[in-house]
Amino acid sequence: MSALILALDATSRNEALAIAESTARYIDAIKIGYPLVLGAGLSVAGEIAALGVPVIADFKVADIPNTNTLICDSVFQAGCSAVICHAFPGSDSLAACVGSAHDHGGECFVVCEMSHPGGAEWFSGGVAESFCMMAAGAGADGIIAPATRPARVAALRELIGTRKIYSPGVGAQGASPEDVKELVDGIIVGRAIYGAADPAAAAAEYSRRCR
Amino acid sequence: MSALILALDATSRNEALAIAESTARYIDAIKIGYPLVLGAGLSVAGEIAALGVPVIADFKVADIPNTNTLICDSVFQAGCSAVICHAFPGSDSLAACVGSAHDHGGECFVVCEMSHPGGAEWFSGGVAESFCMMAAGAGADGIIAPATRPARVAALRELIGTRKIYSPGVGAQGASPEDVKELVDGIIVGRAIYGAADPAAAAAEYSRRCR
Repeated sequence: MSALILALDATSRNEALAIAESTARYIDAIKIGYPLVLGAGLSVAGEIAALGVPVIADFKVADIPNTNTLICDSVFQAGCSAVICHAFPGSDSLAACVGSAHDHGGECFVVCEMSHPGGAEWFSGGVAESFCMMAAGAGADGIIAPATRPARVAALRELIGTRKIYSPGVGAQGASPEDVKELVDGIIVGRAIYGAADPAAAAAEYSRRCR
Repeated sequence: MSALILALDATSRNEALAIAESTARYIDAIKIGYPLVLGAGLSVAGEIAALGVPVIADFKVADIPNTNTLICDSVFQAGCSAVICHAFPGSDSLAACVGSAHDHGGECFVVCEMSHPGGAEWFSGGVAESFCMMAAGAGADGIIAPATRPARVAALRELIGTRKIYSPGVGAQGASPEDVKELVDGIIVGRAIYGAADPAAAAAEYSRRCR
């Protein structure tokens, strides 16, 4: 079984809050990204967290260490519980994200392999495995690995041990909860819930399938 | 000679606008990033552009294609002239950024190598050169290459031809305008201008040294 994480990629504040409220009882966390935050402002994170659902800032932080620190500090000050960052800007940039997360009592997740077709171009050939080891070495709380490629998730699970794996790609990108629910700690579903005619019913159904 | 681009990494709207106004006459563009936008809101981009200075959104966009399109569309709708994205998420993600930029009459720049110490971990060994070819293949308007490593800038100039190169790392990170001004189209200076006791005087001096 796995937790269910809603990728809330609505672009307006009102729509996002309405979906968050109607689905909150069925989900374990809400992941927000820049498409929402650029429209609604970062304060939307606190408004969602006030519903009692932990908020994960999927900002794929990928800058120099000083900038990463500033971004992550903003994330946690806004009420988020976790941040997602990239590994390829290097171990110093990654350490800045983990440091900010832990300074604020939050978690940091590292993208080890992306779920879309282009994600196979540069994260393949051992790169995802290296990122996984970087994540462990930096003291990150977990990694992001693609439900669209369960064999890759299994390979990364071997490396990451008991740290958490959150897995996107379920729903619109084609994967099913059953593909990875025994391998991962959290399954991330976006459009298949927030874009459903009845988001609450879709969340309830995905929640059942994650158990 | 090279253009001078101010990396305006102040974190408050009022401070950012004050520095933008005082330095505008000496600089050719202002680069903003998430540390400012998460605090001030994306509308600050339009406020800076209203001073008559083109605004570059250095968001290091690095997500799946759909999310990249949403982020870049927001950038250009807010009044920016260019966006900076990563190549690492793959050619489909990169194409989404270039497509959004050109749909809005804007420019897209691709990070080929970062300027900080960790930037050498994953952008080395031919990776930066591959990113450079990806940028050209995607029809990007230019690349980002580190003034802290002028020999690398020269190598990437050979590959990128007449497309633009913008180069960070001058000032606080240790490089000088003279290191790269004959190689690049734009030199990016941040803390050495916006953190100076007299930002306008610092901008005037860097502008002179870029000529």
